[in-house]
Amino acid sequence: MLARLAELGLKGHLSEGVERTIIGVVGSVFPELQEMLEAMEGVDDVVRVSKPFKLSSREFQPSDTTIQVGDVTIGGQEVVVMAGPCAVESEQQLMATARAVKAAGAHILRGGAFKPSTSPYTFRGMGEDGLKIMAAAREETGLPIITEVMTPSDIELVARYADILQIGARNMQNYMLLDEVGKSQKPVMLKRGMSATIEEWLLSAEYILSQGNRQVIMCERGIRTYETYTRNTMDISAIPIIKRLSHLPVIGDPSHGTGKWYLVAPLALASVAAGADGIMVEVHPNPDHALKDGAQSLTFENFRQLMAQLPPVAASVGRRVGTGPQRVSV
Amino acid sequence: MLARLAELGLKGHLSEGVERTIIGVVGSVFPELQEMLEAMEGVDDVVRVSKPFKLSSREFQPSDTTIQVGDVTIGGQEVVVMAGPCAVESEQQLMATARAVKAAGAHILRGGAFKPSTSPYTFRGMGEDGLKIMAAAREETGLPIITEVMTPSDIELVARYADILQIGARNMQNYMLLDEVGKSQKPVMLKRGMSATIEEWLLSAEYILSQGNRQVIMCERGIRTYETYTRNTMDISAIPIIKRLSHLPVIGDPSHGTGKWYLVAPLALASVAAGADGIMVEVHPNPDHALKDGAQSLTFENFRQLMAQLPPVAASVGRRVGTGPQRVSV
Amino acid sequence: MLARLAELGLKGHLSEGVERTIIGVVGSVFPELQEMLEAMEGVDDVVRVSKPFKLSSREFQPSDTTIQVGDVTIGGQEVVVMAGPCAVESEQQLMATARAVKAAGAHILRGGAFKPSTSPYTFRGMGEDGLKIMAAAREETGLPIITEVMTPSDIELVARYADILQIGARNMQNYMLLDEVGKSQKPVMLKRGMSATIEEWLLSAEYILSQGNRQVIMCERGIRTYETYTRNTMDISAIPIIKRLSHLPVIGDPSHGTGKWYLVAPLALASVAAGADGIMVEVHPNPDHALKDGAQSLTFENFRQLMAQLPPVAASVGRRVGTGPQRVSV
Amino acid sequence: MLARLAELGLKGHLSEGVERTIIGVVGSVFPELQEMLEAMEGVDDVVRVSKPFKLSSREFQPSDTTIQVGDVTIGGQEVVVMAGPCAVESEQQLMATARAVKAAGAHILRGGAFKPSTSPYTFRGMGEDGLKIMAAAREETGLPIITEVMTPSDIELVARYADILQIGARNMQNYMLLDEVGKSQKPVMLKRGMSATIEEWLLSAEYILSQGNRQVIMCERGIRTYETYTRNTMDISAIPIIKRLSHLPVIGDPSHGTGKWYLVAPLALASVAAGADGIMVEVHPNPDHALKDGAQSLTFENFRQLMAQLPPVAASVGRRVGTGPQRVSV
Repeated sequence: MLARLAELGLKGHLSEGVERTIIGVVGSVFPELQEMLEAMEGVDDVVRVSKPFKLSSREFQPSDTTIQVGDVTIGGQEVVVMAGPCAVESEQQLMATARAVKAAGAHILRGGAFKPSTSPYTFRGMGEDGLKIMAAAREETGLPIITEVMTPSDIELVARYADILQIGARNMQNYMLLDEVGKSQKPVMLKRGMSATIEEWLLSAEYILSQGNRQVIMCERGIRTYETYTRNTMDISAIPIIKRLSHLPVIGDPSHGTGKWYLVAPLALASVAAGADGIMVEVHPNPDHALKDGAQSLTFENFRQLMAQLPPVAASVGRRVGTGPQRVSV
Repeated sequence: MLARLAELGLKGHLSEGVERTIIGVVGSVFPELQEMLEAMEGVDDVVRVSKPFKLSSREFQPSDTTIQVGDVTIGGQEVVVMAGPCAVESEQQLMATARAVKAAGAHILRGGAFKPSTSPYTFRGMGEDGLKIMAAAREETGLPIITEVMTPSDIELVARYADILQIGARNMQNYMLLDEVGKSQKPVMLKRGMSATIEEWLLSAEYILSQGNRQVIMCERGIRTYETYTRNTMDISAIPIIKRLSHLPVIGDPSHGTGKWYLVAPLALASVAAGADGIMVEVHPNPDHALKDGAQSLTFENFRQLMAQLPPVAASVGRRVGTGPQRVSV
Repeated sequence: MLARLAELGLKGHLSEGVERTIIGVVGSVFPELQEMLEAMEGVDDVVRVSKPFKLSSREFQPSDTTIQVGDVTIGGQEVVVMAGPCAVESEQQLMATARAVKAAGAHILRGGAFKPSTSPYTFRGMGEDGLKIMAAAREETGLPIITEVMTPSDIELVARYADILQIGARNMQNYMLLDEVGKSQKPVMLKRGMSATIEEWLLSAEYILSQGNRQVIMCERGIRTYETYTRNTMDISAIPIIKRLSHLPVIGDPSHGTGKWYLVAPLALASVAAGADGIMVEVHPNPDHALKDGAQSLTFENFRQLMAQLPPVAASVGRRVGTGPQRVSV
Repeated sequence: MLARLAELGLKGHLSEGVERTIIGVVGSVFPELQEMLEAMEGVDDVVRVSKPFKLSSREFQPSDTTIQVGDVTIGGQEVVVMAGPCAVESEQQLMATARAVKAAGAHILRGGAFKPSTSPYTFRGMGEDGLKIMAAAREETGLPIITEVMTPSDIELVARYADILQIGARNMQNYMLLDEVGKSQKPVMLKRGMSATIEEWLLSAEYILSQGNRQVIMCERGIRTYETYTRNTMDISAIPIIKRLSHLPVIGDPSHGTGKWYLVAPLALASVAAGADGIMVEVHPNPDHALKDGAQSLTFENFRQLMAQLPPVAASVGRRVGTGPQRVSV
């Protein structure tokens, strides 16, 4: 065993017990090492002690990363609110929503033009037409826009319109896509995969960072558990854990995290109380006519109520909710 | 099918489609019905529409249940703090902790005398000696005490000392125990089982309520998921869900919910922001010497810091943190 | 750190790396050690290398445990079949089932007299009357009987009738109950908890073994996952894992493992192919009239078909299905 | 409510109960309907009764799909064995493995040229060089080859070499990739996502089928659960469920399903006993030197032993293990 370690340029330290021998391995270990050692005869278990992520770790960069998008700073003192419909459905629907969320104090407009759908027979988004509508809404409201990109060949197109590229939960381990957004100059928001560990999520961020793009935002949107009352179980603990392990900003998405509109406000407040740098919520002019995710979307009125509840909670943990982009609409 | 339903005193309404027929069943349905119907030939699926819990539901009792324990009201306007060591280890350890948590503003003293341990070879609690120490701490500090009861034959003993009986997560479906605490006059705090759905948890409460004891407190303490960074994944959404489905008070336990002391404060604040009626946290004079759960216990200093952070968060959601029992110690 | 270890009578071996120091700890470690060390400052992670269970481990006893129940040997060369209804509902129902499963080749009769029910409003079993019916069925068919015991105070009663005491999944961590069946002379079948790890399951066996009862049978009955098509996800890998880690026999229960009668046969065959020492299946004369678990119960005819499929699969992995107890009924 | 349904071209049938009204909806429902209805006021729950997948369902095509790859038929009477290394590491490694698995009776050679890796710092495969080595191995042994494709732009390249395109678990919901392999003429093996329900998995197959490619093979490779002893929990029940719901062939992958080489054989046998149309196993000349997944790879000798155990188990469920492609190597 020690010979094999030496072959690999590593050093092993023995701690011999009566029933087992522990070997502490030091040196510049590499990711494949664990599996190699596990496969050796006489090895019962191999335990990694060093963390597998680097560029995303607080050890590598102790100070918080802040990301500037227009007038909005993500990861700073202010709690940022991203709001809008799940999918862009029409100019009228998006414009009405953009105006309403802007008026209520949102900082960034969300909206999907390319939509991942579990079934091939459902609405998959308006594509470039949707992007154009988003851009028009930015033009009028001054709100920067965030939208999802699903495949490498669409990055150039989406980046032409979007201020932030979103990687959806289903694509968190689509490594070719991560590589390519890592080569882009745009900030990237990386949603946690439905069954991703926090470590895997940070390793996916590492893909983007290691290609040179250091503007990565993490987004907790719920994980899959046995509980069926909610669509997902929002892992609020992931928020302070990301802040501890990493310098990257982290956003809570209670709309996908719960799947029920009446749970969005309490979980949004909980996210901020736990230290989130912002929240992302779905808002729709008419949730019961929405083509996607109506059940988890807030009405304009419910969104306004949430925006009224947010500032005191942010203040109670030493943050504030900014006033939003100030560019005057024409 | 309709004949079988009639046999059972129920009425079926047909909605015939091209490929399937839906039968809506109304009448006084009973819990076994679903399985009976599922087992019939030609039945593809049976879906329950009515809720299986009654006494615990908001429909049965629209107004919040409040529970009075000494000077403390649980489920009312004030957020309640239960604090103390995982296990009573000695008079000195408990007394020091009781004084410290009282001084910091806690309302109720927690401490285990009978401890469920995964391994038979670990410390299983001091038993009645532990209860006596708890009672002495109440005598001095005026703090009511909460402690776990693990088996029906111990209820009488534990109830002689405790103000609130705790049912641990591992016993959430120990129905004989639920029946018996249901016959007791003491308030009962029912922890959510490690893999219990919210519906199963409310049905366990129903066991207690249906025996005549209406003083039930629910406690979210994390559920088991694939994530290994935390001991459990605290399901913060369960807090507003319980408040919506039920009139019973609900407490968040971030110590068991996360298993890491540095996550206790953010998740305690998140619990309150999401609408919890209180929190339960583990505090130990010397966590690295604790016989149980040291890694998730706060030091006195960390607990004081948490108690300073709590009031603004409670205020931000329209609650307040009470000043604690006022009985002067002799 | 080394000082604290010395205080605890242990020895630490350092492996210093550039970023981290690994300390290998040897000596007679105790279960609380991990938490103690985790709580110390500067400690990032504590990893247990030695296994926490002893009496149940293959290292402690290399040869397979076999358990004799009447003419039936569990854990030997023959694959054992336990069959019967979920709950005893009437003399007629149980007798008919006992005769049918005996005729089809079953070795042991199952049936519940005390039933754990998620809801307090459902059928909870016939109690001692059910036990008497079970005993009468044994009298006639010669089949030994297995039935569940739910609380310590019932053990004496149940043991008076039963040949094997069953501990249900919900009670796998009801430690007082484990202690007490550990003091009994009867074989105990311990079902895996709905969200128990294999290690926790073996530690629960350890409770029974450490009280002196060495006749423990493990039973895999499915674990809780996010999948909703089946009632549970049967963890077939647990079967060879138990055989590797432990000397105890292991049984597969595909009825609870899947919750659907049409999945029982394929999962029963899979259990045997993976090395199970037996299977437990629910059989009912009229599944669509069953008071409990009708949807997962086999009809007599389906059970006969399964019993015909079993011998070739057992033979294909070097086992055989015994001919069943030979005692002639009077 | 009925008005809204009529607007949507549907018909609702009322079943009015005392506390609730059930509305059975019939007509040509569409996938978005559920969310639309859930978002309406007064709606407590919406339950889908019709299945969301069509082309993959047994109702659509009652007879089994069989897929011909060279001399090998997948989904027919014979159980098919796919074997080879996780990743192609060198010509020597792959050739040695190809010869060994061919000699032992395998039917198809597996090997990864493009490898998804959790970390960006690990080996990501040899790319086209790996494909060329695979093709050379096919040339010599006559074994058709299966290899993963990770992104749409690689499909043409990979399809030039491979006989079967594999979609990995992480890409099960990479819909752009599914669309594109759906336009290819090659058979596609679709691995189940780590936390995909069976329904979602079939819907992903539906993406491929609906683009015109009807040659889809399903592969169960374990799902993510809380259990840490195994890498994943292999859901053996998924095998008979797919055979029931769908006409598509299904393969069991016990290497990824368990993550431990000593569990591969028992779970391979269990897969076949439960009705799998084949198995996929990792084999490596020297597992403790493997760059990927060494711990779960069989040695040549262990693979030979498995191949000796397989035929009797297949025979016990009425199947046989074919003799493998007969093309003579030059």
